[in-house]
Amino acid sequence: MIILMRLGASPEEIQTVCEVIRSHGVEPLELPGEDRVAVGIPASLSTDQRTNLEAALGSLDFVSKVTQTSRPYKLASREFHPSTSSVVVKNTTIGAGDFVVMGGPCSVESYEQFSTAAKIVKESGATILRGGAFKPRTSPYAFQGLAEEGLKIMQQVGQETGLITISEVMSGDMAPLVAQYVDILQIGARSMQNFPLLIEAGKTMKPVFLKRGPSASIDEFLLAAEYVLNQGNPNVILCERGVMPIDKGYTRNTLDLSAVPVLKQFSHLPVIVDPSHGTGVARYVAPMAKAAMVVGADGLMVEMHPDPRKALSDGSQSLTPEQFSTLMGELRSLAPYVGVKMA
Amino acid sequence: MIILMRLGASPEEIQTVCEVIRSHGVEPLELPGEDRVAVGIPASLSTDQRTNLEAALGSLDFVSKVTQTSRPYKLASREFHPSTSSVVVKNTTIGAGDFVVMGGPCSVESYEQFSTAAKIVKESGATILRGGAFKPRTSPYAFQGLAEEGLKIMQQVGQETGLITISEVMSGDMAPLVAQYVDILQIGARSMQNFPLLIEAGKTMKPVFLKRGPSASIDEFLLAAEYVLNQGNPNVILCERGVMPIDKGYTRNTLDLSAVPVLKQFSHLPVIVDPSHGTGVARYVAPMAKAAMVVGADGLMVEMHPDPRKALSDGSQSLTPEQFSTLMGELRSLAPYVGVKMA
Amino acid sequence: MIILMRLGASPEEIQTVCEVIRSHGVEPLELPGEDRVAVGIPASLSTDQRTNLEAALGSLDFVSKVTQTSRPYKLASREFHPSTSSVVVKNTTIGAGDFVVMGGPCSVESYEQFSTAAKIVKESGATILRGGAFKPRTSPYAFQGLAEEGLKIMQQVGQETGLITISEVMSGDMAPLVAQYVDILQIGARSMQNFPLLIEAGKTMKPVFLKRGPSASIDEFLLAAEYVLNQGNPNVILCERGVMPIDKGYTRNTLDLSAVPVLKQFSHLPVIVDPSHGTGVARYVAPMAKAAMVVGADGLMVEMHPDPRKALSDGSQSLTPEQFSTLMGELRSLAPYVGVKMA
Amino acid sequence: MIILMRLGASPEEIQTVCEVIRSHGVEPLELPGEDRVAVGIPASLSTDQRTNLEAALGSLDFVSKVTQTSRPYKLASREFHPSTSSVVVKNTTIGAGDFVVMGGPCSVESYEQFSTAAKIVKESGATILRGGAFKPRTSPYAFQGLAEEGLKIMQQVGQETGLITISEVMSGDMAPLVAQYVDILQIGARSMQNFPLLIEAGKTMKPVFLKRGPSASIDEFLLAAEYVLNQGNPNVILCERGVMPIDKGYTRNTLDLSAVPVLKQFSHLPVIVDPSHGTGVARYVAPMAKAAMVVGADGLMVEMHPDPRKALSDGSQSLTPEQFSTLMGELRSLAPYVGVKMA
Repeated sequence: MIILMRLGASPEEIQTVCEVIRSHGVEPLELPGEDRVAVGIPASLSTDQRTNLEAALGSLDFVSKVTQTSRPYKLASREFHPSTSSVVVKNTTIGAGDFVVMGGPCSVESYEQFSTAAKIVKESGATILRGGAFKPRTSPYAFQGLAEEGLKIMQQVGQETGLITISEVMSGDMAPLVAQYVDILQIGARSMQNFPLLIEAGKTMKPVFLKRGPSASIDEFLLAAEYVLNQGNPNVILCERGVMPIDKGYTRNTLDLSAVPVLKQFSHLPVIVDPSHGTGVARYVAPMAKAAMVVGADGLMVEMHPDPRKALSDGSQSLTPEQFSTLMGELRSLAPYVGVKMA
Repeated sequence: MIILMRLGASPEEIQTVCEVIRSHGVEPLELPGEDRVAVGIPASLSTDQRTNLEAALGSLDFVSKVTQTSRPYKLASREFHPSTSSVVVKNTTIGAGDFVVMGGPCSVESYEQFSTAAKIVKESGATILRGGAFKPRTSPYAFQGLAEEGLKIMQQVGQETGLITISEVMSGDMAPLVAQYVDILQIGARSMQNFPLLIEAGKTMKPVFLKRGPSASIDEFLLAAEYVLNQGNPNVILCERGVMPIDKGYTRNTLDLSAVPVLKQFSHLPVIVDPSHGTGVARYVAPMAKAAMVVGADGLMVEMHPDPRKALSDGSQSLTPEQFSTLMGELRSLAPYVGVKMA
Repeated sequence: MIILMRLGASPEEIQTVCEVIRSHGVEPLELPGEDRVAVGIPASLSTDQRTNLEAALGSLDFVSKVTQTSRPYKLASREFHPSTSSVVVKNTTIGAGDFVVMGGPCSVESYEQFSTAAKIVKESGATILRGGAFKPRTSPYAFQGLAEEGLKIMQQVGQETGLITISEVMSGDMAPLVAQYVDILQIGARSMQNFPLLIEAGKTMKPVFLKRGPSASIDEFLLAAEYVLNQGNPNVILCERGVMPIDKGYTRNTLDLSAVPVLKQFSHLPVIVDPSHGTGVARYVAPMAKAAMVVGADGLMVEMHPDPRKALSDGSQSLTPEQFSTLMGELRSLAPYVGVKMA
Repeated sequence: MIILMRLGASPEEIQTVCEVIRSHGVEPLELPGEDRVAVGIPASLSTDQRTNLEAALGSLDFVSKVTQTSRPYKLASREFHPSTSSVVVKNTTIGAGDFVVMGGPCSVESYEQFSTAAKIVKESGATILRGGAFKPRTSPYAFQGLAEEGLKIMQQVGQETGLITISEVMSGDMAPLVAQYVDILQIGARSMQNFPLLIEAGKTMKPVFLKRGPSASIDEFLLAAEYVLNQGNPNVILCERGVMPIDKGYTRNTLDLSAVPVLKQFSHLPVIVDPSHGTGVARYVAPMAKAAMVVGADGLMVEMHPDPRKALSDGSQSLTPEQFSTLMGELRSLAPYVGVKMA
């Protein structure tokens, strides 16, 4: 942390800053400059020390600016964990060079619909089956999902097809229930900072698939991952799914593909991209999916519905079975160029 | 809903659109234009009908644009509820012309700290005491609050001072517990779309104080209120607390004061402003607090700490007791000008 | 500037950083920390030194983060110019305790329209008359203004009424022409970083009214002012007119009123608020205008049209003459409370 | 345009709306709904008609919402110009299936620096040479470019190497000068809505390379192109270069790659991607460049400097000659997969 003194700050004022710093248990270092003085804190601070010091110093009139110099996450950081992590789920490993595809409908609507979708997913060579049983919907009047009934359908279809299953959990108290039926717990974008949920999902020790919030900074995203990791659960998978767009008139979100190399550089965790929510428009899913592979993502989550026009949610961004199969083929052709393997 | 056909769409394509609309149980109306045709749907649609139709029509190549013409909320809307609502809590009414102030520290840290804060709040004439027992913190390493112990302190101090109490609840399963100790349940900005929490908070029938998310549109905010109202709980208080800033270097958020007259026009619910989180800087709290009164807010939530430099959270935005008392005096002078009453 | 080394950086790598710094003519200071080393630069850097150093250091693999510790503006900064500046235009002083109102239509449409508007402005007690002769319009097919003909009308009406005139200049080569006809040169939000225009407007030595760009940070805004000041022209007036909104469905922009106390703290220049563009909706103009006075603005720019329904541009945000007069009266009542004078 | 009446609007109020519409020269169409009435305007409106009607209707209390149903651009629209456009510059065609690369330093610093850069560009197989002579810099104290001297260097080096040249023009009055020396006029992101510049650049009839503003919507971007096209100059090349980021701590902008398929769908103009400004970090340039090819861009603009550590501007995002050559090779390998040709 660096504290920049106001221009013309007196020696007494500089001493006051140093005393405030010492009162938080760390030693200040004076940095004389040409036109003003800065005070540095060369020690590692705990988050609370940092927050409290920032508050204490920020309230002083003769302090011009307080700047943080370090990044706030540790367990999620590549600096503290240089080797790349991978998450093993059954016979699939995410983050170890294999490009994995999670496909399926937005919502589990019925055994027939979900079973049909699963067969298409399986035939196309994807290994993970997605489907929502609990649906976070902006409006209370929209379809809210089949709840536990949906989870039971997922479990059954997973067993019948051998596909790995992933479904969203919306509150901490439901984490054990969802963990009982599916292989991977998904935490949705709007829940990224639902801290009780992050903690409970972490406690299940199941793999946790964490979506970035639409206005979350990289630091906030990795700190959310840190909540799960901090429970002793190392199985965290990051998902970029689009940030708040400048223009909502053409895409639902702006898929931030540069977040993939950023996350790969600063974190050791696997990174998946969701071009379906990331664009909100079926015709943009395939190009953005292939781009995600090119920029280094470990896989994709793609919405596919046996009949998008009849989908109970998110139909406009769901691929048809044909589009999904075509995309899988294109990804398989592209994979060798990018240096990744695909099942 | 209006469907704009692509330039040069054929009569058959227009018929296809009309058939898709009819298959969703509503009747289309053709709107011939100079250079192209539009198709209108003059009926009220359910949210699901609307979403599904949008998906079905959006996937057609000869459709240029699908536009929603109505607003999605009902119970929170002033159109369906023209008279202004107020929320009664003990001897205080929020939203009926009295300007209410909720003051207190970010976190309940100890009985001594909270009791001291409460006395200052009471002496200044404010009637509602805020304090966090469960703290949503971006980092898992930051102070997380005293939990139920904090709620007990709140209840005791509330009884001793006669102040109304408000505290945040972070998950649906905790709503009954928090409701047992405090008078108003607060839902934080990061929980605005925690739908299970909105539902459980609604079920307690306690007043629910709902903070706008930092990137939430007005529609999303009122739909979140709709979740609570839809449980049969009419006691919803809206709170503007700042949206994502263009420049994080000077304020923590951008307090969107124009949201106050917007919410007052489109909704009948009371609106409170939080200039503490809205700016994140103590010296900007007083001017923005007074501005909030001027633009028509029903009250304020203001952070005040007996000793901000020692606060365990949010110290840089907390007022000192002196600053808080001064602000209360200034508000009381301003109130008659604005035409509101203050206790 | 502070350079944080990567965890485990070797002594050689730290030396490389120090050498790069020395090669830019400044002396580094090593800051040993608990888990890693930082290197500080305790000298004032020129903008180029800073930019170049940041580039040179940012490309080194063993550097974790480069942080700027100082603010980039000087002439606009209150630190280097502690006393508050005011701008004198004819018989009016902006920024010295008098609250000034600039009123008038978006565009000069004809002598009759503008003259009528001017009389209403004058009768209401406002002293500055606004009107656009050159209109920056998003679409090339929208009304583009009367150009020099409009300026002549402005000059004539200004002389007839004794009002001070202000009008927008859109390109540097037109600055002398506009300066010949009007008293204050306005630089629009979309031109805030039109650097040749800033320079040419500065050279005219006329007062320059600089609008903040819709996505401009405070630093970018003050650096734009710096371009004008750097021409030896001290007569810069800042204008907050709304930033990019989260929700375009209710207001055209989000008026950032907290920018007023921020700018007052960090700069010595006068600050005006434009609630017309800031909201885009006539009914929100009055509350936001009064709030602007409360937060410490030096005045307002308000759109008023003799007949808003017939306005050639921006009708939906223009006040009627009656609304404008009512607002002026309300501001005059509020002024003593806030401690400002109004003509 | 669709006008939604307020719930319970009277027949007289509906008639008022219809009369306002008729007074603007168009015929309304009543759309009775279940709970309220809407009024449609089935004619094509001019921009002014639309703006003025919106203003007139928006001021009526019994109107709930006015919705635009059409898109505002014409000449840039694929609907009005279904075949894909290409721009021919000397021996290179942009937008006709060949993937073009524009490479070179941010600024022309000297003949030696620029000539060295040009040789690297040429050897790598790229055909267009970029370099700034007039530099738009946020700070007035930063290097502003060599001005006409830089243009002369560009012309000379262009002739010596046979490379096509592109350079930024910052104001309308300079457009003829820049057009005299270089082959393509670049309009920078901060100038996207500098309307006099768009008009003057259009008048030169030279190809105009238009960068999207950092907070510009797709509609605003295509309307800016419309300004150039409206001068009778069909040679417009669009450039996506990143939008305002959620998190400035890791990338300078957020490169919006989904804008490429969006622009390709709604416009007929060629689309280039600038991953250098789009990320601001050299190490992210190559992955984002390849992703741009995959999503359908017609080419790239990439910053390369003979010695990035010594660059006078933008060094941290410039590739070294080696990195640039490597990227060119990778693009050439990827091209056949994507179905594009590369020189």
